[in-house]
Amino acid sequence: MNYKMMGRFLSQTLFVETLFMIPALLISVFSGEIAAWQGFLLAMVIMLAVTGILHLICKSAPNALNAKEGLVCVGISWIVMSLLGCLPFVFSGAIPNYIDALFEIVSGFTTTGSSVVARPEDLPKGILYWRSFSHWLGGMGVLVFLLALQPADSNSGFTMHLLRAESPGPNVGKLVPKMRKTAGILYLLYIGLTILNVVFLLVGNMPVFDAVCTAFGTAGTGGFGVRSDSLASYSPYIQNVTTVFMLLFGVNFSCYYLLLLRQFKGVFKDEELRLYILIVIVSIGLIFWNLQGFYATQEETLRHSAFQVSSIITTTGYATTDFDLWPSFSKMILVGLMLIGACAGSTGGGIKVARVLLLFKSLRRNIRQVLRPKSVHVIRSNGQVVDETIVRNTNAYLAAYVIIIFVSVLFVSLDGFSPTTNLTAVFACFNNIGPGLEAVGPTCNFAGFSPLSKIILILDMLAGRLEIFPILALLSRSTWRHR
Amino acid sequence: MNYKMMGRFLSQTLFVETLFMIPALLISVFSGEIAAWQGFLLAMVIMLAVTGILHLICKSAPNALNAKEGLVCVGISWIVMSLLGCLPFVFSGAIPNYIDALFEIVSGFTTTGSSVVARPEDLPKGILYWRSFSHWLGGMGVLVFLLALQPADSNSGFTMHLLRAESPGPNVGKLVPKMRKTAGILYLLYIGLTILNVVFLLVGNMPVFDAVCTAFGTAGTGGFGVRSDSLASYSPYIQNVTTVFMLLFGVNFSCYYLLLLRQFKGVFKDEELRLYILIVIVSIGLIFWNLQGFYATQEETLRHSAFQVSSIITTTGYATTDFDLWPSFSKMILVGLMLIGACAGSTGGGIKVARVLLLFKSLRRNIRQVLRPKSVHVIRSNGQVVDETIVRNTNAYLAAYVIIIFVSVLFVSLDGFSPTTNLTAVFACFNNIGPGLEAVGPTCNFAGFSPLSKIILILDMLAGRLEIFPILALLSRSTWRHR
Repeated sequence: MNYKMMGRFLSQTLFVETLFMIPALLISVFSGEIAAWQGFLLAMVIMLAVTGILHLICKSAPNALNAKEGLVCVGISWIVMSLLGCLPFVFSGAIPNYIDALFEIVSGFTTTGSSVVARPEDLPKGILYWRSFSHWLGGMGVLVFLLALQPADSNSGFTMHLLRAESPGPNVGKLVPKMRKTAGILYLLYIGLTILNVVFLLVGNMPVFDAVCTAFGTAGTGGFGVRSDSLASYSPYIQNVTTVFMLLFGVNFSCYYLLLLRQFKGVFKDEELRLYILIVIVSIGLIFWNLQGFYATQEETLRHSAFQVSSIITTTGYATTDFDLWPSFSKMILVGLMLIGACAGSTGGGIKVARVLLLFKSLRRNIRQVLRPKSVHVIRSNGQVVDETIVRNTNAYLAAYVIIIFVSVLFVSLDGFSPTTNLTAVFACFNNIGPGLEAVGPTCNFAGFSPLSKIILILDMLAGRLEIFPILALLSRSTWRHR
Repeated sequence: MNYKMMGRFLSQTLFVETLFMIPALLISVFSGEIAAWQGFLLAMVIMLAVTGILHLICKSAPNALNAKEGLVCVGISWIVMSLLGCLPFVFSGAIPNYIDALFEIVSGFTTTGSSVVARPEDLPKGILYWRSFSHWLGGMGVLVFLLALQPADSNSGFTMHLLRAESPGPNVGKLVPKMRKTAGILYLLYIGLTILNVVFLLVGNMPVFDAVCTAFGTAGTGGFGVRSDSLASYSPYIQNVTTVFMLLFGVNFSCYYLLLLRQFKGVFKDEELRLYILIVIVSIGLIFWNLQGFYATQEETLRHSAFQVSSIITTTGYATTDFDLWPSFSKMILVGLMLIGACAGSTGGGIKVARVLLLFKSLRRNIRQVLRPKSVHVIRSNGQVVDETIVRNTNAYLAAYVIIIFVSVLFVSLDGFSPTTNLTAVFACFNNIGPGLEAVGPTCNFAGFSPLSKIILILDMLAGRLEIFPILALLSRSTWRHR
């Protein structure tokens, strides 16, 4: 394996992460939060030292990575990024326990939004900013960011593998022939939409700090709020703006690129987008019907239904109401949305609508194959034949998904919480959502779990964000076997 | 489609079912249960009438069925068999509500064992016998029974399709070249083991009626008990005998055939059998460890652990203790066993150990494929390369499995029970187990669900027993489309 190249990437990743800590440091300094800025400074010094050492060791690396190295590189980068990124929490004393701090930052980077902090209001502003910013950074991916910064003439043989490993969805398409440029376009769209979100929130008289942090959480489909009641105490206008932007960030970003190119037909005929919109509308409708009489007015019922559906299907995890108190049917719809997740190529988590569509199509194909064994059946998506490798990988994804959930629930259940708590805690972490039901419901947090359960949930969050394979590659014997 | 051939099979199925009602009728007569024997008589007259009409219409059928017709034929036979088989419950007044009676008989035939009856002790003996016997009949399959009775010189082109559709497991092997003979051997083994079970129970001084009914439930991996506390009030000896026989009926029957042929090597090297034994031992061990201090003695702890593990993994559903009171970890292990289920080619339900093994292997293959895209990887089972069609069908099975569970839970949750109740009720029915957790725990029953939920659960039980595809084939548009 090309360890030096991986080391070089890791050093670049850590350098970018350190740079991104500067705003948090400045906020701490200007807010007069002494423990916080000292914490950031100490963490940054350590990170720069690691960056420097890695750079010196690995600067003479051959410029190539194969598929396997791409997976391993992404997996290791995310783990190291988290191991160091949580240091400010520890050093500042905001979250003194290291496992808790790691849980919090992994929850941030993976855009999960599950928290061990009961009252975010009590955290220093710099820490709060870094916590929300980790969503924004993790949403599109640090390595995608790095790729966008690569010099134009660099060897791009390895960029495809990295982008594939870090980006969500069964099939990562190129927007333009050069992957480097694709990464750049994705980030520009991401920044543009985020700014638009902040502007809309400011129009509703949200404080600037709250607006920026909330937009970070929305853009990355993360879910860390700056208040302990999430978005419940903000105005209906702000809640509705967030509903819309959550849904927007759950859409495949290539759709926005097509819109910019005025290729409207391609967008409106996109099967995944259509199914995504259909699921959202039907879910809101069913919950709205099921919640009749639960809230004082129809406006409130609709607002809360739409907000919670958007928050859960995009795996953001913000809440405007305690949906753990909703009737069983509505809760089950939310659990279903937890599993489905957002569109491929968005910042959301979950199985992804595109995969659900592929699984349905592959199931229909197999039923037909059983009924008529002699004819040949192919699977089409948007009119084009889907490669059998993608179909097979999607099925393997589902198998891995079920197995990981089962094993995780088993470990977590050692803590003795209720079955619903165990199951939805794992769902919420693995699908990068945030809140679950019962003891991990929207008004609760994850602080009560044992360190073992937290480590399991940390691995689940990483496996969910990186879509399983990079983490499985790290754990697979055949990765480390010498030939 | 060859409707006449399907009609002929249906008429034969109903005729056999009617014949098998005779013992129940006689028991009712000799026990002096007037309402019961009148109920049986009326039901039998109706069934004979239907049999006769079908026979007259369909006697000139061409002797052939293709794969599609095989699936449809099995699906329809099971549904009609249930629609008529529950009539004695209704006519005798034992379960006057038709939906409840249908639920009970489908639960019987599919060897689920979920009941709407709170106190089986209060049912007439003839009804109780018929209820338990339905497990035995459904365990190995009525159509397999019919195949075993076909004249030796009959066209066997269609028997393969029928046996495939009715028998559990990803790949139905032939024991001997002729399917008819395979079906006969399976039934002889089944009858032999059942008699052995009865003998062992009688040795423990169990009353004859109880022993026969319990053995029926064990052999079919059903789970209807003759007492409301299932097997809790019988002696430890009887409980231990049942533990062993449940495990035996969860083994692929072809292993017993190989044992009779003295091919011990093939049996002991069977990967599925090894994994099955491993799962059982590990689960018993973990639960035994988790239950320390829960019961008075170690003997009791081990006995209850072993019984419940055997009962759940074989999807029988008998209970010797209220495992809903067990700690979370032990309950989660049981839920996991619910999903895994018994071996392929046994009378048990669930995903089947063979499929779990295939899913793991297919996942490992895909990880390797992702790591080394250029090499070709095949899946082996017991040293032989597994056909890709089987791998694909297994993955489609998992997809269908997840989708059906999700949709079913959604419908059932309209009744407003807790998430754990909804989920485990569907698990218990779809995997043909019987009891779930909380409101459908081992001390409770399914009477509280709405008629809609009961119909959903009835379909789940049928889909689970027939391994999804025959029921999906019935619901698929492409089955009914004319070419």
